[in-house]
Amino acid sequence: MIDAVKLGKLYKAGLLDDVVPFWLNYSPDREQGGYFTCLERNGEVFDTDKFIWLQARQVWTFAMLYVNVEKRSEWLAAAEAGARFLLQRGRAENGYWYFSLTREGAPLVQPYNIFSDCFAAMAFGKLYEATGNNDYATVARDTFYNILKRQEQAKGIYNKAVPGTRPLKNFALPMILCNLVLELEPLLEPSLVEDTIRAGIDAVMKQFYRPDQGIILENIRTDGGFSDSFDGRVINPGHGLEAMWFIMDLAKRKGDDALIRRATDIALQLVECGWDAEHGGIFYFLDVLNKPLQQLEWDQKLWWVHIETMITLAKGYLHTGDGRCAQWFQQLHDYTWQHFPDPEYGEWFGYLNREGKPLLSLKGGKWKGCFHVPRGLFQLWKTMEAIEQKYPAYLLQTK
Amino acid sequence: MIDAVKLGKLYKAGLLDDVVPFWLNYSPDREQGGYFTCLERNGEVFDTDKFIWLQARQVWTFAMLYVNVEKRSEWLAAAEAGARFLLQRGRAENGYWYFSLTREGAPLVQPYNIFSDCFAAMAFGKLYEATGNNDYATVARDTFYNILKRQEQAKGIYNKAVPGTRPLKNFALPMILCNLVLELEPLLEPSLVEDTIRAGIDAVMKQFYRPDQGIILENIRTDGGFSDSFDGRVINPGHGLEAMWFIMDLAKRKGDDALIRRATDIALQLVECGWDAEHGGIFYFLDVLNKPLQQLEWDQKLWWVHIETMITLAKGYLHTGDGRCAQWFQQLHDYTWQHFPDPEYGEWFGYLNREGKPLLSLKGGKWKGCFHVPRGLFQLWKTMEAIEQKYPAYLLQTK
Repeated sequence: MIDAVKLGKLYKAGLLDDVVPFWLNYSPDREQGGYFTCLERNGEVFDTDKFIWLQARQVWTFAMLYVNVEKRSEWLAAAEAGARFLLQRGRAENGYWYFSLTREGAPLVQPYNIFSDCFAAMAFGKLYEATGNNDYATVARDTFYNILKRQEQAKGIYNKAVPGTRPLKNFALPMILCNLVLELEPLLEPSLVEDTIRAGIDAVMKQFYRPDQGIILENIRTDGGFSDSFDGRVINPGHGLEAMWFIMDLAKRKGDDALIRRATDIALQLVECGWDAEHGGIFYFLDVLNKPLQQLEWDQKLWWVHIETMITLAKGYLHTGDGRCAQWFQQLHDYTWQHFPDPEYGEWFGYLNREGKPLLSLKGGKWKGCFHVPRGLFQLWKTMEAIEQKYPAYLLQTK
Repeated sequence: MIDAVKLGKLYKAGLLDDVVPFWLNYSPDREQGGYFTCLERNGEVFDTDKFIWLQARQVWTFAMLYVNVEKRSEWLAAAEAGARFLLQRGRAENGYWYFSLTREGAPLVQPYNIFSDCFAAMAFGKLYEATGNNDYATVARDTFYNILKRQEQAKGIYNKAVPGTRPLKNFALPMILCNLVLELEPLLEPSLVEDTIRAGIDAVMKQFYRPDQGIILENIRTDGGFSDSFDGRVINPGHGLEAMWFIMDLAKRKGDDALIRRATDIALQLVECGWDAEHGGIFYFLDVLNKPLQQLEWDQKLWWVHIETMITLAKGYLHTGDGRCAQWFQQLHDYTWQHFPDPEYGEWFGYLNREGKPLLSLKGGKWKGCFHVPRGLFQLWKTMEAIEQKYPAYLLQTK
């Protein structure tokens, strides 16, 4: 059902002929360093603030392309230009990464957000892989240790919850750690890698995944229980779906077929739960008890949700051959290709309303940068190649 | 053009026969005190958290009805039940009001939000007016002094902005103070009232209002300049429109016709800027330079925006007789009456998508409670009565 040859070419071309050139052309700030990420539909810069999440993710993307696709010097130069800006401007005195900077690099928003550190660690880890430069390794390692140190109190002094009344833990950090630890594996002691992986898989698959409802919760009580509150009820289907390919990658690494099977089954439950039967696409947020949400953007269709889901379904199909993965994959591909890529100026729209029309014209902003689309197209391209190799007979059958 | 007799009756009936009974029936928590505000379409409680904004606003609403409409003991009892819960549970040790509590009253979210204090002061001020009980006056006064003390650093330790890099001031507090100071006038020294009014009018009309663009900004630089940033560019048309009736009330109090005229002109600019020519209704957020916004909910149509705009246009018409106010008022009335009231279960939907369809089924939640709709219907009812008295000839003319 998946025409892996054709799709592999499509994803590769999207990555190398459309998305990467878009960011290389419009994003570098050649005067002040770092990248502009707030780009209008046509690439024009509409705001110059620099968000550490997106600066770091773009460093990672260009380093990843250099490591995994081709040793193009312009890609390495783009990654290192971003890294220089981050090293000069990105950290507070305690080594924590700010949330945002002005164009010139003056700190704007305090280091309240631990994911700035996660993406910085990821960036410098990949840049070490690309260059062998030990300075990058040190930054990645120090940042990773800070994350582990902060993880129980991730928001620190900026946490507005009164301690003790409703202690919750959030899905995002264990989920990101499942991916980050693989990214940093060459830099860390093996026992720390194993412990982090074990804890991550346990959190995602045994604590946040709720078999009774077939969904992943965004927040659970610290004792593992369900919290019947706005935070406790919220589901972010794309978040859980993205986590499932992180889990599949971990399972693949340790040759755990049963874990791959479980991650695939959960992914199928999540995509069924998240799909909008009326207008197509996957909802941004849902309430597990079908109560009204506090997220006014709940019914919107976001770029990252859709491409991450495609990766998960493609990997699920690759590893299990389950026809339901192929079927859902095709459905996601069709919706995504019809709605997100901009036929006029290239790259992807980020935010669609429920009906699938662009809600914002931007190609990049405060949260969308050079990350999910290129990472996703790369993952999809390589997964299509693997499917092509693993299931040649299947392809013949559909001709 | 405004059929004030007919509309006055409509608003009065909406208030007394629909909205007030809805909240009296479904909202009181007779076991634990205070109010449930998270109410489904049919009044069913879907979440039991208690948000200080909404607890206080509902106390104010029932006290206001008791003072201004009729001495119904059930209204006073409802107000005092909410006040008891607030007094027992609402404040931290330093006297600042928490943001939210559990159903039982355990503090959930710290006192990071100065508007909790604004609405608490408003509630206890009105309850003092209703009862003459000096304990309520003391709470209102102490809370008001705390607000003045905190106003320059409203978010306190929870402020994530790095000091000095981009110092901004926000429109909401000066705007709310314009209304709050009139609410608390009987409790405050006259010189404090005058100073607060003067500062409020200056902030709203001379600093946040930008004559070149004909709009009100949500955030400006502390030196009064425009900040070309996400926060600096954002417009909330409903916010500015609501402020214009606060200004008209202040202007009326001091007999300043020129100020009423200016507020009316600004209101007409704001409604023209905020109106969605394609689907009707007023946008939630816009960018003054037409750049993409960070608010994903920017194109939604919210209940409070529409009823507050109706009040402003009605008062603008009452005081100036400007036909454009009457015309816009009719347009707002038609849109609002077609889209917000729920014909099946009563009360109003709060959140519509751009096309005007309900986005959430709730009647009350974390931000919508027993406040804007009843206050608005009361204001509209009384303004229609005043129009009827001031322009009797006009009414004859349209018959």
